[in-house]
Amino acid sequence: MLRLYYAAHTCALASHIALEEAGAAYETVRLDIDAGEQRSPAYLAINPKGRVPTLVTPRGTLTETPAILAFIAQSHPGAALAPLADAFAFARVQAFNSYLCSTLHVAHAHRMRGHRWADDPAAIAQMQRKVPQAVGGCYELIERDMLRGPWVMGNAYTICDPYLFTLAQWLEADGVDPARLPGVRDHRARMAERPAVKRAVAAELA
Amino acid sequence: MLRLYYAAHTCALASHIALEEAGAAYETVRLDIDAGEQRSPAYLAINPKGRVPTLVTPRGTLTETPAILAFIAQSHPGAALAPLADAFAFARVQAFNSYLCSTLHVAHAHRMRGHRWADDPAAIAQMQRKVPQAVGGCYELIERDMLRGPWVMGNAYTICDPYLFTLAQWLEADGVDPARLPGVRDHRARMAERPAVKRAVAAELA
Repeated sequence: MLRLYYAAHTCALASHIALEEAGAAYETVRLDIDAGEQRSPAYLAINPKGRVPTLVTPRGTLTETPAILAFIAQSHPGAALAPLADAFAFARVQAFNSYLCSTLHVAHAHRMRGHRWADDPAAIAQMQRKVPQAVGGCYELIERDMLRGPWVMGNAYTICDPYLFTLAQWLEADGVDPARLPGVRDHRARMAERPAVKRAVAAELA
Repeated sequence: MLRLYYAAHTCALASHIALEEAGAAYETVRLDIDAGEQRSPAYLAINPKGRVPTLVTPRGTLTETPAILAFIAQSHPGAALAPLADAFAFARVQAFNSYLCSTLHVAHAHRMRGHRWADDPAAIAQMQRKVPQAVGGCYELIERDMLRGPWVMGNAYTICDPYLFTLAQWLEADGVDPARLPGVRDHRARMAERPAVKRAVAAELA
């Protein structure tokens, strides 16, 4: 049995959706980020980073969304969530997810987590001011050069799709108009119709 | 034949070392970041992100260090650079590399690339001021919870090692005293003795 530690409205939704898509046997534990539960001693003993998601497996603990997504795909090959037998195609999947993790999510994080990189309130406000431009620039690249359609990698649904869908929940709050990004907007709408996505979203918002 | 686009003193060194460790057939193209070559139309046609590294393969182009490293390992299985047949162990490798990419490298980037996240010079200076603390915090976590020794994953040398070695080149410039981090410091010294590392470093500094 796998156990996913998540918090609502975070990138953990990507792993949650992937577990649903895979038909995995799993349970969830919800953390309250606003109450600081991710920094409780009990949780830090599980994940010393104090972040979500964490996936606890019978072998040990996994963190980092790109790694968890690839693990779900590799450990549930029947679900065909990644091109596991093709090193190049798998690397394209990983490159997309790595970009979301290290560039798009980071650009977004400067809106609410600026304290990670500066202490001065005026500097944090300046970071927030640039979020629409920085996040928007990432999405323009995704729209133009990465998102093939109908799914990120083309005709095959992969672990890229729940990750993009999850981060695209934050478009409007980050000040990026989805009308500028018809491919991303349509992908988000297409994803929202998938039964696995509906189940994961419903569970997190319940 | 693979072709690696790199620039000196960047994270591309990790992929360069991994190609050497793998015994891969490859050639390199050096870009001058200070001259802005990564934003030239010719390079943007290869990698629209305008960053290094880029690995051009017979199948197409790959970007993002964690993806390139995993690709090198998977396409050169004889070099045993990752636990390819064990989804959990492979995910641990990926989680480490994802952390370096999305948290450690990002913390470092606030020293010289603050313009990505703010326009105001005072805000950029405030980001620079916090780099020793932010980068140092990442390394404390690596030292305490991730680096098993003698290599990152323990007795097996993996694609985690060239990546940590590469980022650890910047410790002193980021204001982090390696004496606080004996595990990371000793890993860096151990890596520097490997013939593949010596070859890649010599090629980049030639």
